[in-house]
Amino acid sequence: MINYPIKKTTRKTVSYKNRGMTLEEDINVTNDYYIEHNKAIIHKKPIPIKVVNVQYPNRQSAVIDKAFYVVPSTTDYNGVYKGYHVDFEAKETSNKTSFPLQNIHSHQIEHLINIKNHGGVAFLLVRFTLYNELYLLDADKLEEFYKRSFTGRKSIKREEFAEFGYLVPIGYSPRVDYLKIVDELIKKRSN
Amino acid sequence: MINYPIKKTTRKTVSYKNRGMTLEEDINVTNDYYIEHNKAIIHKKPIPIKVVNVQYPNRQSAVIDKAFYVVPSTTDYNGVYKGYHVDFEAKETSNKTSFPLQNIHSHQIEHLINIKNHGGVAFLLVRFTLYNELYLLDADKLEEFYKRSFTGRKSIKREEFAEFGYLVPIGYSPRVDYLKIVDELIKKRSN
Repeated sequence: MINYPIKKTTRKTVSYKNRGMTLEEDINVTNDYYIEHNKAIIHKKPIPIKVVNVQYPNRQSAVIDKAFYVVPSTTDYNGVYKGYHVDFEAKETSNKTSFPLQNIHSHQIEHLINIKNHGGVAFLLVRFTLYNELYLLDADKLEEFYKRSFTGRKSIKREEFAEFGYLVPIGYSPRVDYLKIVDELIKKRSN
Repeated sequence: MINYPIKKTTRKTVSYKNRGMTLEEDINVTNDYYIEHNKAIIHKKPIPIKVVNVQYPNRQSAVIDKAFYVVPSTTDYNGVYKGYHVDFEAKETSNKTSFPLQNIHSHQIEHLINIKNHGGVAFLLVRFTLYNELYLLDADKLEEFYKRSFTGRKSIKREEFAEFGYLVPIGYSPRVDYLKIVDELIKKRSN
């Protein structure tokens, strides 16, 4: 048996490949792809931060030295696709069997329902990391599961995502082509 | 002549009344009005901030003690109205005769043009503070003035806003009813 010397650079590359991208990274590069290919303009919103104090060490720069994270009142992503307002929240879960609704703020769910009621395309993206499955759940269905949680089950089963949601195609470029599913949702509307 | 004693509370009220609201405040209360009356869901996006360091003095709280402002890549406001994606930037100028285009980032102008090209309703709101006039300029017209600035005039004249834009009605509630103008823009499309 020969022990091949392991180069540091090789190791690095391997560990990087195995690391996997977070859902946020996958969505960001997908949105970049959509913009570059002039398909849609969808951005991640900045994280809301309450600035308490700012220092001005010189005329050109401002350094924030006291600030706090604020609970977001809307979702993370929105934009325009084929004239439609698109709005969604994205979550990952390492859970095997279901997505707990406590993983998403209730006012974010209500925001998605409102957007849907105003004619926008609103949905939830959930990745089950153990299976590397990414589901899109339309706000209509999300509303049903949300209402159910008031009196019953406080999570959405993986099988329910499979039955009532859509499996988002995973590829190289675009990474998570969720607009393919949005096309289906739009087609459904015009029928 | 009688000197009436001036109550501190009265004084406060007077100074508050005279202060006048910034355009941002006016738009925020208008958007709140639209949401409360279920007319539209339009929000101001958080200001983009690059967080460099966070302290955790205890388990419940996170204090950001080093962060910087980042140049925004999109506009300040967006949302959904009657199914349309609405996207705009709002600026005030104390200038008497024109709005200098350097007051808005060029990539923000390009963002508005892109949104328009993807079927969204995109525009610029400009308040001439000296006259208390608020104009809405559609992205179509903004694009023309933007292109002109490459070789010619680098500002949009107040008269040009009056001729090619729309004067936004100012009232008590909603404060700056810009959706009235959006209604006109939508009507124009369907013709």
